[in-house]
Amino acid sequence: MKKVILDCDPGHDDAFAMMLAVQNLDVLGITTIGGNCTLENVTKNALKVLEVLGRTDIPVFAGHSCPTTVPLVTAPQFHGETGLDGPVLPEPTAKAQDQHAVDFIVETVMNTDDVTLIATGPLTNIAAAINREPKIVERVKELSIMGGSVTYGNWTPAAEFNIYVDPEAAYRVFNSGMHIKMSGINLTRQCCLTAEHVAKFREIGTKAAHFAADLTEFFIDTTIKSASLSGANMHDACAVAWLIDPSLIKAADMHIDIELKGELTRGMTVCDYRHLRGVEPAVDLCREPQMDFRGEAPNAEAALELDFPGFMDLLYKTLKNYN
Amino acid sequence: MKKVILDCDPGHDDAFAMMLAVQNLDVLGITTIGGNCTLENVTKNALKVLEVLGRTDIPVFAGHSCPTTVPLVTAPQFHGETGLDGPVLPEPTAKAQDQHAVDFIVETVMNTDDVTLIATGPLTNIAAAINREPKIVERVKELSIMGGSVTYGNWTPAAEFNIYVDPEAAYRVFNSGMHIKMSGINLTRQCCLTAEHVAKFREIGTKAAHFAADLTEFFIDTTIKSASLSGANMHDACAVAWLIDPSLIKAADMHIDIELKGELTRGMTVCDYRHLRGVEPAVDLCREPQMDFRGEAPNAEAALELDFPGFMDLLYKTLKNYN
Amino acid sequence: MKKVILDCDPGHDDAFAMMLAVQNLDVLGITTIGGNCTLENVTKNALKVLEVLGRTDIPVFAGHSCPTTVPLVTAPQFHGETGLDGPVLPEPTAKAQDQHAVDFIVETVMNTDDVTLIATGPLTNIAAAINREPKIVERVKELSIMGGSVTYGNWTPAAEFNIYVDPEAAYRVFNSGMHIKMSGINLTRQCCLTAEHVAKFREIGTKAAHFAADLTEFFIDTTIKSASLSGANMHDACAVAWLIDPSLIKAADMHIDIELKGELTRGMTVCDYRHLRGVEPAVDLCREPQMDFRGEAPNAEAALELDFPGFMDLLYKTLKNYN
Amino acid sequence: MKKVILDCDPGHDDAFAMMLAVQNLDVLGITTIGGNCTLENVTKNALKVLEVLGRTDIPVFAGHSCPTTVPLVTAPQFHGETGLDGPVLPEPTAKAQDQHAVDFIVETVMNTDDVTLIATGPLTNIAAAINREPKIVERVKELSIMGGSVTYGNWTPAAEFNIYVDPEAAYRVFNSGMHIKMSGINLTRQCCLTAEHVAKFREIGTKAAHFAADLTEFFIDTTIKSASLSGANMHDACAVAWLIDPSLIKAADMHIDIELKGELTRGMTVCDYRHLRGVEPAVDLCREPQMDFRGEAPNAEAALELDFPGFMDLLYKTLKNYN
Repeated sequence: MKKVILDCDPGHDDAFAMMLAVQNLDVLGITTIGGNCTLENVTKNALKVLEVLGRTDIPVFAGHSCPTTVPLVTAPQFHGETGLDGPVLPEPTAKAQDQHAVDFIVETVMNTDDVTLIATGPLTNIAAAINREPKIVERVKELSIMGGSVTYGNWTPAAEFNIYVDPEAAYRVFNSGMHIKMSGINLTRQCCLTAEHVAKFREIGTKAAHFAADLTEFFIDTTIKSASLSGANMHDACAVAWLIDPSLIKAADMHIDIELKGELTRGMTVCDYRHLRGVEPAVDLCREPQMDFRGEAPNAEAALELDFPGFMDLLYKTLKNYN
Repeated sequence: MKKVILDCDPGHDDAFAMMLAVQNLDVLGITTIGGNCTLENVTKNALKVLEVLGRTDIPVFAGHSCPTTVPLVTAPQFHGETGLDGPVLPEPTAKAQDQHAVDFIVETVMNTDDVTLIATGPLTNIAAAINREPKIVERVKELSIMGGSVTYGNWTPAAEFNIYVDPEAAYRVFNSGMHIKMSGINLTRQCCLTAEHVAKFREIGTKAAHFAADLTEFFIDTTIKSASLSGANMHDACAVAWLIDPSLIKAADMHIDIELKGELTRGMTVCDYRHLRGVEPAVDLCREPQMDFRGEAPNAEAALELDFPGFMDLLYKTLKNYN
Repeated sequence: MKKVILDCDPGHDDAFAMMLAVQNLDVLGITTIGGNCTLENVTKNALKVLEVLGRTDIPVFAGHSCPTTVPLVTAPQFHGETGLDGPVLPEPTAKAQDQHAVDFIVETVMNTDDVTLIATGPLTNIAAAINREPKIVERVKELSIMGGSVTYGNWTPAAEFNIYVDPEAAYRVFNSGMHIKMSGINLTRQCCLTAEHVAKFREIGTKAAHFAADLTEFFIDTTIKSASLSGANMHDACAVAWLIDPSLIKAADMHIDIELKGELTRGMTVCDYRHLRGVEPAVDLCREPQMDFRGEAPNAEAALELDFPGFMDLLYKTLKNYN
Repeated sequence: MKKVILDCDPGHDDAFAMMLAVQNLDVLGITTIGGNCTLENVTKNALKVLEVLGRTDIPVFAGHSCPTTVPLVTAPQFHGETGLDGPVLPEPTAKAQDQHAVDFIVETVMNTDDVTLIATGPLTNIAAAINREPKIVERVKELSIMGGSVTYGNWTPAAEFNIYVDPEAAYRVFNSGMHIKMSGINLTRQCCLTAEHVAKFREIGTKAAHFAADLTEFFIDTTIKSASLSGANMHDACAVAWLIDPSLIKAADMHIDIELKGELTRGMTVCDYRHLRGVEPAVDLCREPQMDFRGEAPNAEAALELDFPGFMDLLYKTLKNYN
C-alpha cells in the first residue's frame, strides 16, 4: 500500500478523503490546517473521524492555523459552525500529537522513502514544509491535491476555495518542482452525491456507512442552499481515489501557475492547456496533444474526467469493509 | 438588413468578416484599428478587400493607431508583414475618409437608430467612442465582438489576442452597459478551415471565392506553423455570422469583466459562469441554469457552440453571390 | 508671451491658475475635464471665472466627462457641490465652444508652433489628444502639470488626487515622450495661503482680488476641516507660475512612471530620484547628483522647492492689474 | 541590558549590528536568514564575526534559506561573493546549533519575558515564527528592523532591498500587530562612513576595530562603485543603536503597510505620514502632527533623523571596549 500523509481540514468531503485513505492506503499520519474551519475545530474533527473509523492508532498533527501571508477565510455556509456539522459525534478520546504538522511532514519525508503527500485543504502546511526543508521536494514521491480548477472557479468566478484561501502557499508549491496531481473543481463537480447515494449508504449499514450518510445529507443540504447545485461534491475524496485507483481519472500534463496579483483572478490556477484545446469531449484532450504557442513545460497532471460509477463502487466497497 | 458599422484590423479572418458583412448586412462604414498589423496597413487592407468585393461605395475610416494606455502588439506570425499576406492584390484605388473612425462611429450612432456595432480587433475605437460620447451606449442596438474566451486564452494561457492588446479599452466597454455578444476563442476554435474548404472555394470559382481560397491557404499555413493547430480559425467571421443568422450560435448570458492587474491573467475575460457549470455537453449549459454563489448580473451573451456546417453553408452562399 | 492651452477642472486652485495664466501668458483656449467636479460644472465654472476676469474672449472647450478606463471620483469635500463654492457669481453669459476639447488641442498644436500645455486636472484630455494624434508629442513645447508627488500622496498615502483619478491617462502621458514639468504636492504644500493672504487680497481691492479672497476663504475652511492642514494650498497655480517665472521653482530631472496595478499605490507617480538622495536640504538635490543604481533616463522635471514669497508677489501684482 | 535575538544576514553592515549588539545588549542568540548572501554563507559569516569578537558563547541558529513565496535575490555587488568580503578571516571553529532559527525564536520568546527582536535582513524568519506561533506577537517586547523607507527605495525606485527580497514576509509582520521600530534607508543614508572613520578605527587599534576598518574599506569601495554614493551606509547598525540609546534617533508613529502587487512598487513600505507632512525640516515632523485625511492607526515608529556623531561615539566606544 502507498505510504501517504494526508493534510486536510475536515470538512465533510475531507472526511470522505479520510475514509478512503485510511483503508486503502498506508496513512503515516494526518496533519491538519486551518481552512474549511478553524485549526482547533478541524483537528478535533480529524480525531472524531478516526474514532468513527476505529483507527485512533493513526497519529494526528496540528499545523498552521492560518495562511502564510493573509488572514484566514473559512466556509461555514457549507460545513456548519463546527466544520463537520450533521452527524452527532462524541468528543474525541484521542489527542493530537505535540509535534507540529510541518515538522512531522519534514521528518517523515526525510526519513522514509516514497512518501506521497495528499493535501485537501489550503497548501499552507505543504509550503511551510518546503520552506523548512527544501530537500523534501526531491524526496516526496508526489503530491495529490484537491484544489484549483482547469476552467472556472467556485469561490470567485476564477478561483477555487482551497487555493483562494492561501494563494502564496499554492504559488510556492506549484513553483517548487514537486510533482503534482491536481484534482480541481472541474473534476470534482463530476463527483456529485444525491439522495440515492445516501440511501445506498444506509443500505450498507456499517457504522462508517451511516456516518457517511449523515455527512452527505448535511452536505447536500448546504450545497443546494449555498450553491444551488443538485448534490454534494465530494471534492477531497477524488484526490485520494486517484492514488488508490489511477484508472478512475483521466488527466493531462500541463503547466499550472498561481495568480497572486489579479484583482478578479487572485488565487486562480492558471492552466496552460493551449496545447490541448479545440478537442471535444474533454477526455479526448489526452489523446491528441496539439501545441499552440510554446508555453512552459508541464509541472502538473490535471484531472479532467472522473469515472464516477467506478468512484462510487470504490467508496461502497470501502464503507462495507469498515465494520 | 441590419445596419452595422464594422470595426476591424484586417487580418485574414477580418477579411472573411467583411465578406459576410458586406453582402448580408447594411454596412454603413468600416472603421479600422491598429491590431493584427499597423493602422496604416490594416486600413489599406480594408480598402483592398472592398475592391475585390466590388464595394468601394462603402466608406472606410481610420481610427486609433495603438491602444489607449499601453504600446501596440501585432501578430505578424499569423498575418504576415502586410497583415494580409497571401493573395496578391493591387494597391487600392479608393482612399480612407478624412473623418476619424471614432467621430464617424459617434456621429452615425447618434443620428441613426438601431445601429449594431461589430468589433473584430482590439476595442480601442469602441472605448474611445464611448469616452467621446457616453450616450452612444444607450443608442447602439448591440455590439458583437470577436475577442476573449469563456475558458482558455491563446496569446497567453489566460488571454485572447484582441483583448490582450488593449485590456483597458475592453474594461471600459464591458463596464459601459452596452449590450455585448462575445464570440470568444472557445467558440471560434470550432470554426476551423482546412484544405477541403479551400478546394470548395476554388470550386465556387468567383473572384471573391478565389480570394477567400488564397487567404485561407496562407492562414492555414501560418496557423499550423505558429500554433500547431490543424487548420485556420476564421475567428472574426463568427461575430458577423451570429448577427446574420442567430441560429448558428448557442450562447449563454453571463457576467464578464476584464482583468487588468494580473501578472498571468492580464487581458483575461473573466467569465462568471458558475451558474452554468457542471452540465455537459457545453451547449446544454443554456438549458438548465444553476446558480452557484450569486455573482453579478449578466452583462453579455457568450457564444458557446457553433453550427459549423451551417456557418460554412452561409459562407459558400455568400461567396457565390459575389460575382 | 508664451502660447498656452490650459486644461483644468475649476476648482478653487484652478481659478488661481486661470488668473495667473490669463494675464501673464497668451492663453489660446481653456479646456475642461471632469475631476474636482463634474464636466458640466467645471465648464460652467471656467466660464464664470473668465467673466470675473473680463476675458470672455478666451474660448472654452469641454472635454472628457470622466476617465478613460475607470469611473470618475470628485472632491466635493474641498470644492463644494458646484466645484467652486464660496464666491456668489451670476450664471455665465458666454458659452463653451461646440468643438471638443481634444480636437481643439490637437488642431491648435498641429497648426501652431511652440504651444505649451498646462494641465491642472486629471490627464484624461491630454492622453486622449495624444491617442488621437500622436504627432502632438513632438509639436508641443512642453507640458506643465499639477499632479503627483515626489514623495507622499494626499488622496491615498501614496497617490495624489489628479493622478489617482485617471492613472491610465497619466501612464500614457508620462510614457509618451512629451517633455513634462511636474508640480507635485511635495511642491504645492509649500504654497499655503492663510488669513493674512486673504487680508492682503481685500486690501488690493480689485474685483479679481475680492474674488480671490472669497475663493481662498472657502478653500481654507474646507482644507482645515477635511485635511487638518493650516491653510489652503493653491496647487494648480504653481504649474502656471513655473511657466511665468521659472526662477520661482527649483527642480530636478528624474524618471517618473505611474503605478497602475498596486493595491496600496495605484496612481502613484513613482519617481526615481535615487541619484539625488541623501542630500539635505531638499533643494540641494539639484546641486550634486549622485547616481545610485542606474535607473531609466529622466523624462520629467520634478519641482522640489517653491519661492513662496516670490510666488505671492507675482499673484499680488497679477490681481492688481485686473481692474 | 535588554534581552534580544538578532536575526541577520551578514553582510558588512550586519557585522556592525553584531558588534554593537554583542557588547551593549544581552544577545540570547543570533539567527540567520538568506538575504545579502546564501544562508550557508551568512551563517558562516555570523560565526566568524563572533570569533573576532571573542563571543563564541553566543549561539547561532540557521533559519530559512529563501523567502516564503518567491526565489531569493542576493546582493554580491555590495558584499562580495562570500557576503563578507574584505577582511581575511579563518574558518570559524564554532558551529551553528542544530535547532532551526524559527524554533529558537518561538521557544525563547514563549519562555522568556520582554525579549526584543532585531531583524536586519529579509523578514522571512520573523514571519515564519509568527506563523508557527501567533502568540509571540503579544509576548515580544518589540521588533526593531532595518528595512523599508519612509520615502524612496534603493533596490528599485520605490523599494528597499530587505523588504524587496521577501515582501510577503514583511506584509505578514507589519500586519501582525507586533510593535515595530523601522530604520528605513531614509534614516540609514544619514549613517555614512568614509575614509576618515576608517582612519579613526585604525587609531583605536583593537582587533575588533581593525576588523571594522577592513569591513568599512571594502564596503565603501563597493558602495561607490555600485551606487555612486560617497561612503558606506551602516544600515543595519542603526536598528541596534536605536535600542541601545533611543536618543540617537528621532522617529514618528505612522501606519506602514507593504505593497505586494505593484508593478513598479512591489516591496515598498507604504508609509502614511500625511498627518506629518508639510513641515520642515524632517525632524520637526515629530513636534506638530497635523492630520490630513484620516488614515489607519499607526502600527510602527519610523525613524526620521539620526544623531550621526552620537552614533559614531557609541561605535567608537564599543570598538575600544572589545580588547
